[in-house]
Amino acid sequence: MDRGKLIVQIKSKKTFLCIGLDSDLSKIPSHLLNLDDPIFEFNKAIIDATKDLCIAYKINTAFYESNGIDGWLSMQKTLDYIPNDIFTIADAKRGDIGNTSKMYAKAFFENLNFDSITVNPYMGSDSVKPFLSFDDKWVILLALTSNIGSSDFQHLKFDNYSLYKHVLDTSSKWGSENNLMYVVGATNPQYLEEIRKIIPNHFLLVPGIGAQGGSLKDVVEKGMIKDCGLIVNSSRSIIYAGSGLDFAVKSREAALDVQMQMATYISKL
Amino acid sequence: MDRGKLIVQIKSKKTFLCIGLDSDLSKIPSHLLNLDDPIFEFNKAIIDATKDLCIAYKINTAFYESNGIDGWLSMQKTLDYIPNDIFTIADAKRGDIGNTSKMYAKAFFENLNFDSITVNPYMGSDSVKPFLSFDDKWVILLALTSNIGSSDFQHLKFDNYSLYKHVLDTSSKWGSENNLMYVVGATNPQYLEEIRKIIPNHFLLVPGIGAQGGSLKDVVEKGMIKDCGLIVNSSRSIIYAGSGLDFAVKSREAALDVQMQMATYISKL
Repeated sequence: MDRGKLIVQIKSKKTFLCIGLDSDLSKIPSHLLNLDDPIFEFNKAIIDATKDLCIAYKINTAFYESNGIDGWLSMQKTLDYIPNDIFTIADAKRGDIGNTSKMYAKAFFENLNFDSITVNPYMGSDSVKPFLSFDDKWVILLALTSNIGSSDFQHLKFDNYSLYKHVLDTSSKWGSENNLMYVVGATNPQYLEEIRKIIPNHFLLVPGIGAQGGSLKDVVEKGMIKDCGLIVNSSRSIIYAGSGLDFAVKSREAALDVQMQMATYISKL
Repeated sequence: MDRGKLIVQIKSKKTFLCIGLDSDLSKIPSHLLNLDDPIFEFNKAIIDATKDLCIAYKINTAFYESNGIDGWLSMQKTLDYIPNDIFTIADAKRGDIGNTSKMYAKAFFENLNFDSITVNPYMGSDSVKPFLSFDDKWVILLALTSNIGSSDFQHLKFDNYSLYKHVLDTSSKWGSENNLMYVVGATNPQYLEEIRKIIPNHFLLVPGIGAQGGSLKDVVEKGMIKDCGLIVNSSRSIIYAGSGLDFAVKSREAALDVQMQMATYISKL
């Protein structure tokens, strides 16, 4: 999916919500557990209930890999089930030496046909660039993450400039605003203003709204641009909003609540 | 596998060679391609031909994920085929927020029963610690990698101390020399002396010998300790030493050449 189509989707659906399908056998409603592929059935119901309220689904590969081959199959079926006009994110946080990153790119862009993949910047240019050579596919590079450990290294200052800013500055030259986005956690909205000075036009994938405690209002105030420029992810607070037979209804209610807030921001663009 | 068993294996087999099974359908001998699972058949032949010459096999997950479910199956069969007394490394370079890293740990330590996994430090403590809570399992944390891009961020200096040194210093407190190793590329042996000042006793996984150009002699001189403390990986220069019907023989010859050099170093310990 190219940038233009993403923006059209955001403006027409009045939402910039991404729903994270962190689907876990130990957390999904128990009545699904007797089905052939409980994770896929759960995802299918969530997708059916929310697809008009979000512009992206994010599949965190850890939750699928933990179920081995069955999990990989659930991931593939889920990806095939997501409507083509919705942006898909492999939240895989990959990255390796050049020839190996090429193999990951093949895995996620060709075999699985995701629109984008999250990539870890630690290994530098040749670990990221192989993902940037596919038409209408995106790298979403980790910059400032939403977890506690983000303070261990991402805020270290080199020449009075934090590591995550070096990552933004250096990596923005490897791609463009048409194939490169960044992960910036919603738990750190105070940094968004400074981030926008370095990358004024790139889309940001913002996790941390909901279960992790980030505020949508803060993120919008500091990070939104004329093309929206934000994809805000919520996983657990939407997909686990209910745990009974009506789990999909509850998840729609939770997603609708976020989408309605987002609509007011989109209408001001 | 615990540290004691690893050291016994190194001293009795007189080798600290790890063979990287970066097995790629486009590179393995063509006569294997008609078999049911060419990648597994290739790995099986390489393992049979080299298992007395190495102390570890490293499976880079990218090469398996790029073949989807078939690849995941090849990986599982390969891992099951590796003799139990040989150390196994999932070269997966994972790392995510705490609850997600737990899922990766489950995937690689429980479902797949690897002895160790490579982890990326960028997201900090809570992305690494979940991997450290399994008995006799290891984290191999990226410190200074062997690729060109390692210069982009790993050498940035904070308080006159490079990022990779901060990674070593900070993360060494998260685990111990009994569950934590580090990736240090052989293409950077000049840094090994300084690295040994920070982590005098930890094992290092050293990629970059062979196809990537690193020198075994330099690595041993700067990095070896009384317990050896080194696992030196070679992938392409061993597994692709031959391309004909005798590929396994050629790969044994290449591995034997490295092992014989290693034996002279081990005999001096």
